[in-house]
Amino acid sequence: MYNDMNCQKTKVCLILTLCIFYSCNNTSPKKDLKEDPSTDLHQQKQTEYALVIHGGAGTILKENMTNELENEYKAKLDEALSIGENILKAGGTSLDAVVSVIMIMEDSPLFNAGKGAVFTNEGANAMDASIMRGNDLEAGAVGGISNIKNPITAAQAVLEKSEHVFMVGKGAEAFAASVGLETVDPKYFYTERRWNSLQKILEKEKSLGYNTTDLPDSKFGTVGVVALDKKGNIVAGTSTGGMTNKKYDRIGDSPVIGAGTYANNNTCGVSCTGHGEYFIRYAVAHDVSAMMEYKGISLEEASHLIINKKLKEAGGSGGLIALDKYGNISMPFNTPGMYRGFVTDKERYIGIYGN
Amino acid sequence: MYNDMNCQKTKVCLILTLCIFYSCNNTSPKKDLKEDPSTDLHQQKQTEYALVIHGGAGTILKENMTNELENEYKAKLDEALSIGENILKAGGTSLDAVVSVIMIMEDSPLFNAGKGAVFTNEGANAMDASIMRGNDLEAGAVGGISNIKNPITAAQAVLEKSEHVFMVGKGAEAFAASVGLETVDPKYFYTERRWNSLQKILEKEKSLGYNTTDLPDSKFGTVGVVALDKKGNIVAGTSTGGMTNKKYDRIGDSPVIGAGTYANNNTCGVSCTGHGEYFIRYAVAHDVSAMMEYKGISLEEASHLIINKKLKEAGGSGGLIALDKYGNISMPFNTPGMYRGFVTDKERYIGIYGN
Repeated sequence: MYNDMNCQKTKVCLILTLCIFYSCNNTSPKKDLKEDPSTDLHQQKQTEYALVIHGGAGTILKENMTNELENEYKAKLDEALSIGENILKAGGTSLDAVVSVIMIMEDSPLFNAGKGAVFTNEGANAMDASIMRGNDLEAGAVGGISNIKNPITAAQAVLEKSEHVFMVGKGAEAFAASVGLETVDPKYFYTERRWNSLQKILEKEKSLGYNTTDLPDSKFGTVGVVALDKKGNIVAGTSTGGMTNKKYDRIGDSPVIGAGTYANNNTCGVSCTGHGEYFIRYAVAHDVSAMMEYKGISLEEASHLIINKKLKEAGGSGGLIALDKYGNISMPFNTPGMYRGFVTDKERYIGIYGN
Repeated sequence: MYNDMNCQKTKVCLILTLCIFYSCNNTSPKKDLKEDPSTDLHQQKQTEYALVIHGGAGTILKENMTNELENEYKAKLDEALSIGENILKAGGTSLDAVVSVIMIMEDSPLFNAGKGAVFTNEGANAMDASIMRGNDLEAGAVGGISNIKNPITAAQAVLEKSEHVFMVGKGAEAFAASVGLETVDPKYFYTERRWNSLQKILEKEKSLGYNTTDLPDSKFGTVGVVALDKKGNIVAGTSTGGMTNKKYDRIGDSPVIGAGTYANNNTCGVSCTGHGEYFIRYAVAHDVSAMMEYKGISLEEASHLIINKKLKEAGGSGGLIALDKYGNISMPFNTPGMYRGFVTDKERYIGIYGN
């Protein structure tokens, strides 16, 4: 009897131990998964390399799109993915892949970056770009530049060839020229489509009697790329023409490290697109990384939480692309559509609209 | 004997239970404290209001300071604290307190902000400032402005009177003038002391044959204020003249929301000072907030972790001031000194050197 009772006690005690152990583990389940990758597929390397791209989020609706234009977008996204994939497959760096892919998108008038950038209130093009390297957290960014053919190369030069991280305006242009980047006449960035958008918005302003950027997509349009190379290095980059009719040398989130762009080999790489002011105030790109690192949640959870909960509740529209060190990919957006795509050694995807 | 063994087993089991329970709690001790504020003084409101200020971190050493200059700094820090305290004590807002205190510091030639700003390579003054409000995460920032008497008022105007968060250069100046802020001839910002610093560094450059900012304190000097008002609202603001001899319209961390400045009523308010490039790359101000929110650690732990571990290991020098919603205050720096002080309804402190 006494023995039985003791036995009983021992059992109760063991069960109690297991219960407490289990409940303790349960408060931070992801941490344990992280330490033991075998328990979750998403915590294992999925692919040798990965590349994810976006060409802007906004009111992109099937009914407003011609088949021809849709095919143009798809073909350009496909071309961009292939260029990046070839670099990564051949063992190239994620930095090379990101810069090369963004250049292709900047050179296309389809996207609001480089050739195709929207016009400011003064009828000029003022572009922003940034890039960040996840292995050493080095970064480069430029804001409000008008005569460098590929703004992303200016951001890369700030990262690689200067002691600074962020330069703007004439100074950034002088630096870019001093390191031999290709300069162009600012007229190079003229496209009829974007010029007409500005005229339309200026007319609306005249009738309203006040400054507005309140036309579909006048706030949006950015290109961004995140890549994971075979060595496990993550790089993220973003380039934009900003907001149609922008005034006062406004800077959006794209050149702001932590807002529009962030990369850290231990967590993820992120490039954002959307209503830039919200992305700055919520430090969106860094927030994804911070939630993964400190809360121990997955890339998917973290990126959806910020885009579909925090930003959505605050009224901030847009989206982001991101990948983690395992090659998991996330592309959430709270707008009707986002030009997007990704490629890994196993999969290839291109999308425009939401569900 | 058998009974003894069972008894022994029961004891071991109970000890094991307690050990596991303790070690589980130990992995996230602050989370539990947070849920039960009564268990930790630091998780209770300490004070009706609080204000913390800095006037820059750097190689500030007792042996390089005259008594007279030291007293001047102390008197100005004291004056600044009193102005903020009077506003908060009378039930004023943390926004008012932050702007008023920063204006006093900008008007003083002692600090590298406003009157007293350092010179760029071109012999001009180009100032940056930002402010963020913790209740709604609204923010305003300006970069590279030269003719607004108090740059912090330009940041405040961007927050309150524009749909944007960040403006730079001539555009930011035009906006500030359009809302009626006091403009001055850029010569207003001339001070002999800062002009001589530039000449000294330009001479060094000539002999070295390359661009340098490598003179003590040429990288540092900023002012910042964080306040908690009686309503529990936190506001953080930062203002700076940047880096002596800066080129290429370099932007540091001060106007970068998430880097030099961040505020969130749920966590803390932060203003940074130091080698700006590191503070941008590590998204320092947002990181303090993120560690508190996601790791559940205290303001003290989070701010020391970033300044004395992450940044120090990366080679980034500087410091920060911060306060949380309970009125706890933290002022870590990894440089020899930081001009700093705080005031609450119970305490008042002014400091210059480290230990």
